[in-house]
Amino acid sequence: MQTDQSANGNRKSAMLVECVPNFSEGCKPEVVEQIAQAIASAEGATVLNRHIDPDHNRSVITFVASPEKIVEGALRAVAKAAELIDLRLHGGEHPRIGATDVLPFVPVSGMTIDDCVALAHEAGNRIWRELSIPVYFYERAALRSDREKLEHVRGKGLEKLREEITTNPDRKPDVGEAKLHPTAGAIAVGARPFLIAFNVTLETNDIMIARRIARVVRERDGGLPFVKALGFELRSRGIVQVSMNLTNYEQTSISRAFEAVGEEAQRLGVKVRGAEIVGLVPRAAFDREASYFPLLENFSETLILENLLT
Amino acid sequence: MQTDQSANGNRKSAMLVECVPNFSEGCKPEVVEQIAQAIASAEGATVLNRHIDPDHNRSVITFVASPEKIVEGALRAVAKAAELIDLRLHGGEHPRIGATDVLPFVPVSGMTIDDCVALAHEAGNRIWRELSIPVYFYERAALRSDREKLEHVRGKGLEKLREEITTNPDRKPDVGEAKLHPTAGAIAVGARPFLIAFNVTLETNDIMIARRIARVVRERDGGLPFVKALGFELRSRGIVQVSMNLTNYEQTSISRAFEAVGEEAQRLGVKVRGAEIVGLVPRAAFDREASYFPLLENFSETLILENLLT
Repeated sequence: MQTDQSANGNRKSAMLVECVPNFSEGCKPEVVEQIAQAIASAEGATVLNRHIDPDHNRSVITFVASPEKIVEGALRAVAKAAELIDLRLHGGEHPRIGATDVLPFVPVSGMTIDDCVALAHEAGNRIWRELSIPVYFYERAALRSDREKLEHVRGKGLEKLREEITTNPDRKPDVGEAKLHPTAGAIAVGARPFLIAFNVTLETNDIMIARRIARVVRERDGGLPFVKALGFELRSRGIVQVSMNLTNYEQTSISRAFEAVGEEAQRLGVKVRGAEIVGLVPRAAFDREASYFPLLENFSETLILENLLT
Repeated sequence: MQTDQSANGNRKSAMLVECVPNFSEGCKPEVVEQIAQAIASAEGATVLNRHIDPDHNRSVITFVASPEKIVEGALRAVAKAAELIDLRLHGGEHPRIGATDVLPFVPVSGMTIDDCVALAHEAGNRIWRELSIPVYFYERAALRSDREKLEHVRGKGLEKLREEITTNPDRKPDVGEAKLHPTAGAIAVGARPFLIAFNVTLETNDIMIARRIARVVRERDGGLPFVKALGFELRSRGIVQVSMNLTNYEQTSISRAFEAVGEEAQRLGVKVRGAEIVGLVPRAAFDREASYFPLLENFSETLILENLLT
């Protein structure tokens, strides 16, 4: 029996962090490209994706690295964005507070969310020290409870923040002087969990069954920790689905979630039809020996995040 | 000599439109997946990309189809989003006006921007008639000049619009009753050009040369129509780059832009080093006989949008 690539936590996987900065530029792909090049110039950083949104004049770059290297990649991104994006030219646009608007750190494997909070704080301190951009910490990296939600940090955006930062103590940055960087504004640096989206389809068209199973397995109703779940109808296929988000696969694995759905389905006399993983997942999240594996409708090696690393 | 896949307009390419709806849901990948499935259930519609942004609780799906089929795909997306996303649960979040927040139509090949304006208007009328969601037209599809900019249509977001739509004549929708849909809000439907990002690197580290060439080739300073250009330094490589956006490749081709840069570089006594295309481009935009083609640093068949169609 193979024991590698199991999700049961017996084998320590390589430590890997994801960083997903958002930039206030979505109309000039060459600017986004140069920021991506700056990230890739950091040793050990791999850019997985660029997303350019011209409708909102924003863009998102996803990259991964070891915890030792990720902060350097993030710093190069923030520095390049500060060099190429002049927020004074974005007046009146989509609410934003910085050239690099948000910078979240996400544990991929072998890391806890608290490790990512520490990386966020390290990055925030370097951003102020090396680039003179004031920093707000949000979500799990927040230092005050009124900054956990990104929209509270952002408030009414840059123009409003320009005055507030200097006058309102509640808007003072967590690191740095209470004054915007002249062209790059401010930045929100955070940490949040890695999310695996995992769906299980059932041999029934009764939405009440899917909803009942979702209630049993999800954390908020006393089910499995780190599991969110909802029941959905797939009307075009005439079946229903239990759709789950796993926010800590090392604590509650795909396998465990699948089994919990299966047990409850059996109790209700309904058969499990198939399973599906949406988006990229860490290699350590897969267990090829698990009962869900043969039922996966969309498995491909390109779903495994590490397979995209060069 | 091969003459297919040329960018010179002598050969009519298949008509293809891109649609890039943004949805007010970025924390539940299963919702985004179901919207993508609804789009894919429309005959002839191909989903090219999903982008989920948990930091802003938003997502973007990119799909393409012929002009005859694209509106049906868009309607299915908007209907499914209205079914699955309840905007009343998003109070206080990132500014947005609808479950499907924006719905832009983009000409890919064989289409003008005006064709896409007509598609946007057709989609907007069907959205009101079939789904009872009030519609604002923006960018090139705008019916009033104060709605060209998306941020003006969005204003201060849903909560503010809820009152304003009923009382302020300037906030009345372009199609439909002056009243938000109870759960899905409103929607901004638009048309904008397809953008090709094309960079040319030069054998010099003198940024002034790149900037001078950019000025000569770009439309706003009297250069080529539909060309935006800027000069950049690639410090890590010790060279400079003329970075261009082509907003109508059927009018000003990659080839034409490349030649214009080359002529000006020659006048200034500087050699062209290489060229680069960023992101997906329509097959008709490539001319494999053109002088830039052998200089492309990153060419791969996966850059061609049509190669991703199933």
